[in-house]
Amino acid sequence: MTTKTKRFFLPESEIPTQWYNIQADMVNKPMPPLNPATREPLKPSDLYPIFAKALADQELNQTDAWIDIPEAVREQYKNYRSTPLVRAYGLEKALGTPAHIYFKNESVSPVGSHKLNSAVAQAYYCKQEGVTNITTETGAGQWGAALSYAAKAFGLELAVYMVKISYEQKPYRRSIMQTFGAQVTASPSMSTKAGRKILTEHPNYQGSLGTAISEAIELAMSTPNCKYTLGSVLSHVTLHQTVIGLEAEKQMQMAGEYPDIVIGCFGGGSNFGGISFPFMRHNILEGKKTRFIAAEPSSCPKLTRGQFRYDFGDEAGYTPLLPMFTLGHNFAPAHIHAGGLRYHGAGVIVSQLLKDKLMEAVDIDQLESFDAGTLFAQAEGIIPAPESCHAIAAAIKEANKCKETGEEKVILFNLSGHGLIDMAAYDKYLSGDLQNYALSDEEIAKNLAELE
Amino acid sequence: MTTKTKRFFLPESEIPTQWYNIQADMVNKPMPPLNPATREPLKPSDLYPIFAKALADQELNQTDAWIDIPEAVREQYKNYRSTPLVRAYGLEKALGTPAHIYFKNESVSPVGSHKLNSAVAQAYYCKQEGVTNITTETGAGQWGAALSYAAKAFGLELAVYMVKISYEQKPYRRSIMQTFGAQVTASPSMSTKAGRKILTEHPNYQGSLGTAISEAIELAMSTPNCKYTLGSVLSHVTLHQTVIGLEAEKQMQMAGEYPDIVIGCFGGGSNFGGISFPFMRHNILEGKKTRFIAAEPSSCPKLTRGQFRYDFGDEAGYTPLLPMFTLGHNFAPAHIHAGGLRYHGAGVIVSQLLKDKLMEAVDIDQLESFDAGTLFAQAEGIIPAPESCHAIAAAIKEANKCKETGEEKVILFNLSGHGLIDMAAYDKYLSGDLQNYALSDEEIAKNLAELE
Repeated sequence: MTTKTKRFFLPESEIPTQWYNIQADMVNKPMPPLNPATREPLKPSDLYPIFAKALADQELNQTDAWIDIPEAVREQYKNYRSTPLVRAYGLEKALGTPAHIYFKNESVSPVGSHKLNSAVAQAYYCKQEGVTNITTETGAGQWGAALSYAAKAFGLELAVYMVKISYEQKPYRRSIMQTFGAQVTASPSMSTKAGRKILTEHPNYQGSLGTAISEAIELAMSTPNCKYTLGSVLSHVTLHQTVIGLEAEKQMQMAGEYPDIVIGCFGGGSNFGGISFPFMRHNILEGKKTRFIAAEPSSCPKLTRGQFRYDFGDEAGYTPLLPMFTLGHNFAPAHIHAGGLRYHGAGVIVSQLLKDKLMEAVDIDQLESFDAGTLFAQAEGIIPAPESCHAIAAAIKEANKCKETGEEKVILFNLSGHGLIDMAAYDKYLSGDLQNYALSDEEIAKNLAELE
Repeated sequence: MTTKTKRFFLPESEIPTQWYNIQADMVNKPMPPLNPATREPLKPSDLYPIFAKALADQELNQTDAWIDIPEAVREQYKNYRSTPLVRAYGLEKALGTPAHIYFKNESVSPVGSHKLNSAVAQAYYCKQEGVTNITTETGAGQWGAALSYAAKAFGLELAVYMVKISYEQKPYRRSIMQTFGAQVTASPSMSTKAGRKILTEHPNYQGSLGTAISEAIELAMSTPNCKYTLGSVLSHVTLHQTVIGLEAEKQMQMAGEYPDIVIGCFGGGSNFGGISFPFMRHNILEGKKTRFIAAEPSSCPKLTRGQFRYDFGDEAGYTPLLPMFTLGHNFAPAHIHAGGLRYHGAGVIVSQLLKDKLMEAVDIDQLESFDAGTLFAQAEGIIPAPESCHAIAAAIKEANKCKETGEEKVILFNLSGHGLIDMAAYDKYLSGDLQNYALSDEEIAKNLAELE
């Protein structure tokens, strides 16, 4: 029996005081977002009507590698950070692998996921600038729950558009948002032009992140003193999430190891970028050879099978044009339970990094993701979120390769959230009612062709 | 803005290596359990048919103040312990109290509650003695979820009887148990004599812990190589939970304070005893004056309005007669959402301590408990379990008294679990559909009279 340390924590004094902005260190910077009308590159001021100024500035900042974390945000971080870095001895044993598997356990945050890292930052900057109301969208409800707490903490009113299928499949997350005092509306709704349009054309549409984003932006634009906030995709969101990787870097030092492979599940890119970028800077600046793997669902494979091009971030076309790997902003993903991964595109930073082969992507079937999640639960005692199951499945693939080769690789993945509020999905899995959703090349090509 | 430490952790090397057995230090020991047929005091060997020997020995051990925690159990503890001791700055501010409020956050365990502390211990001892199958009951599902993980960790088959109302109200906890590989049956069921009897007499009976215990004991007695386990009430369960208070004692030292008041919610007594007894030993041995407050629901008020007498621990009368504060083993509590507190009696240690005025009890209405839980959620970001809401309500009462008197008392309570799987209850609360359940003196007296 091992008596080695299983969980590594940092003292509060070691919690990072700056976020890491990888844009400053990238050799090929992300291409600029474009104004869809003029095709001119956007300036931060073009984003001020939608976002808090500080966040718009962060979004397009390609020069400062380090951004100070405001003291009020650090105080909020102290409520749950550092999160533990855990050596997954149980999983290693269950797999019989020589690999050393670690995971960063973001599920211990009060709302159960990493989303709080950016939620408190965004709420803080809005409050600082005199904003009184904020809007957002949420897929699985993890982001909405986090922002609801953050809005309450900083005294802001919050309206959330929740993707309809999640609203119905995950009523507990809706209740969590309401307990924190937020207003929650199922999307598509009749409360916006974007929602009415899609409901008129497709009365039974179960919603998507793209549509919910359109509704939230529209409400923000039409409400006085109101800003829009987003839980992933954008560069400033990923910036805030780098607190995960920066902590993990120090904690891996405590464990006396350095990762050969870093893995995160992939929806818009914020948790993946959050754990990866602080390690990736050593690849860029010092020539380290760590591999970075984004694990996306097979039913929404923008990284592995999408196209790199300019596209809208939302369904209705309210956002700037973003240079991204995309399946097309009109893509309607299958109703998998990993609601947080049902998004048509990838953030601009990750898209550039993938194009430049600084990272890899892998796609995971729904059943494989739950196989992995259930094995992990039984081995480590933590029931993972359906989204996080994709990262676990990718880690297991790599650990099994080590079993074949005998290599003692060090694998680090991000456990972005727990699945205690997603048990309906596990129920379906256990009863054999879950399925995979194959996507043909023709479907993907057809959808992309509509963009032309 | 404060920059003081909010959360105190212990390094793994400081996690307690022994549990504290308060029975050894009590001046008036608990009276012995009696064989119901002979009225003779029980010996440990009388309990061997039902419980693992080591647990039966711990149950009646009134001499050893310290019991070594087996290494395999300590390895399991490392998966989530130490749990943080948190200074509730947010709650203090929301109340405007000069009191210093701390809580021990047991909700960070992988299954979301303190129950794992005893589950891994009980599973370990059963495995050590060659047991292959175990049974148990669960109210809200917290204990069942914890034991399901522990059974899987030690390779035991587990059958759980889950109180029917919780089985229906909290389907996610059932799914959690099933994800860990346990068999779950709604109680009362037709699978036991005890279940059939009560279903025949009361076809719509929604179940109680007392009935579920009867069913689990009956199954254990009729299954080869099978033992019964219990999640609260018994002295060995509370013994295992003292890891909470022992950690808290060290963590309060890190914070430079010592509690004037220690509070736990009260179902059978294990989380209350777990956080209280390590501090209470300083009252007993050194004359400290800390107050200890058990917070029970008004609808199930055995400590505040029950009778101290010998009674059965279960509904059917399979257990020994226990000297306890009780409402009668035939008491059917109202269907409050704090399912873990719906139990007719109190453990023998706590009962003796209350009789000897070494502790106090307070009863909390259901609505007051959710008022407190919602305030706590909005102030601290953590949605508490309905059971834990009772401890929070009691802490708020004491903090508000400090506000009147200006005293800077140090209040410590146990946050026994989170409420993320209890959101249906919060839904009802938010929509105004929750109610209180008044219990008249006549009802209590009538029920107790039936015992004669």
